[in-house]
Amino acid sequence: MKIEEKLKELKLELPPAPPLGGVYKPVVIVGKMLYVSGQGPMRLDGSKIIGRVGENMSLEEGYAAAKQVGLTMLSTIQSEIGDLDKIKRLVKTLGMVNCTPDFKSQPKVINGYSDLMGEVFGKDNGVGARSAVGMMLPGGIAVEIEAIFELY
Amino acid sequence: MKIEEKLKELKLELPPAPPLGGVYKPVVIVGKMLYVSGQGPMRLDGSKIIGRVGENMSLEEGYAAAKQVGLTMLSTIQSEIGDLDKIKRLVKTLGMVNCTPDFKSQPKVINGYSDLMGEVFGKDNGVGARSAVGMMLPGGIAVEIEAIFELY
Amino acid sequence: MKIEEKLKELKLELPPAPPLGGVYKPVVIVGKMLYVSGQGPMRLDGSKIIGRVGENMSLEEGYAAAKQVGLTMLSTIQSEIGDLDKIKRLVKTLGMVNCTPDFKSQPKVINGYSDLMGEVFGKDNGVGARSAVGMMLPGGIAVEIEAIFELY
Repeated sequence: MKIEEKLKELKLELPPAPPLGGVYKPVVIVGKMLYVSGQGPMRLDGSKIIGRVGENMSLEEGYAAAKQVGLTMLSTIQSEIGDLDKIKRLVKTLGMVNCTPDFKSQPKVINGYSDLMGEVFGKDNGVGARSAVGMMLPGGIAVEIEAIFELY
Repeated sequence: MKIEEKLKELKLELPPAPPLGGVYKPVVIVGKMLYVSGQGPMRLDGSKIIGRVGENMSLEEGYAAAKQVGLTMLSTIQSEIGDLDKIKRLVKTLGMVNCTPDFKSQPKVINGYSDLMGEVFGKDNGVGARSAVGMMLPGGIAVEIEAIFELY
Repeated sequence: MKIEEKLKELKLELPPAPPLGGVYKPVVIVGKMLYVSGQGPMRLDGSKIIGRVGENMSLEEGYAAAKQVGLTMLSTIQSEIGDLDKIKRLVKTLGMVNCTPDFKSQPKVINGYSDLMGEVFGKDNGVGARSAVGMMLPGGIAVEIEAIFELY
């Protein structure tokens, strides 16, 4: 099944590809490796999900934000390479959570992204190596994720 | 000398490979490059080293935790690829320390990992490019490290 | 134009290549990919730019520190591979800002690095994929950046 059909079947809608937030390229391809810049959680209306998990955002809201980062990332990649079916698999993810110093469940937040990728690309190809950690994020967004994909 | 013999000579014992802590693969291989997911410091009994350097953990304890992350990572890789002798060299390390905002010696903490890798694989192959920085880590573990290795 | 001439034209002077701050290699090359270790902002006199953006350092000072990280990185690479003209393009940057929990403009800080790379290597080759985030940095330096370049 094509990824676009898969997204429809899963009733997933991609937000618009986010505008550039600085001096960078959304995606750089070297050989078969696609490096995607850190993506934030963009809603369908183009607004961003803001918040700090453990302070004014629950674990469940963080999970939902991480899923939205995944949809935003797919939108970015689609807008850059034209066709998500060129993606062979997810290689590596750095999942960054805007959280309090005492928050301890960054992996459960980033699972929102990883579960999505597993559904869209299948568990073999959609699940990669990963780190899920906490730091300070631009614009106060709840989650930021950068990733490396392998192309066909 | 085989890596397994080298570990014995250095009197280093690998902890059990850690159970999955989320939706990810412990290791992803693309061509000759092996990406290993962020690893925490697991003791031989399977418990994790918890703490924040600069708060309730000294630099020396942080160094020991980073060394234990290295042993945990070797255990993970061995369990995934079967044989540590397939590793040619360490390419790149992101060393993440759970520390207070004013702690300044993240590199000295992560040296615990880097010294170990240098002993096990030799200084030419066991020492790679590196960043050593501070952030919030899952489960309150003291150190987390992700790395890229090159295989033979 | 050669990069060395370009630097002169832009009136940019490289600081000395920084001494090793731990157990790592400044640069590791695998095939055509060059991985450069996290670099701090070193002045021409070899001193480091210390500070936390949002606390005792302004956005503009952060931007200047990130630019200085870029010059430091070029010095490191030149000292390791001999000739900056071997660089084809910047692939990926992880820009790390020492900032307060409430600082939100990490991308504007890291633009100091990205603008420099764009000037030196041109916008096509000098601008890559990027994340710009906040964390705790060694020695209290204001900015640390690690990057991957592609060589000719």
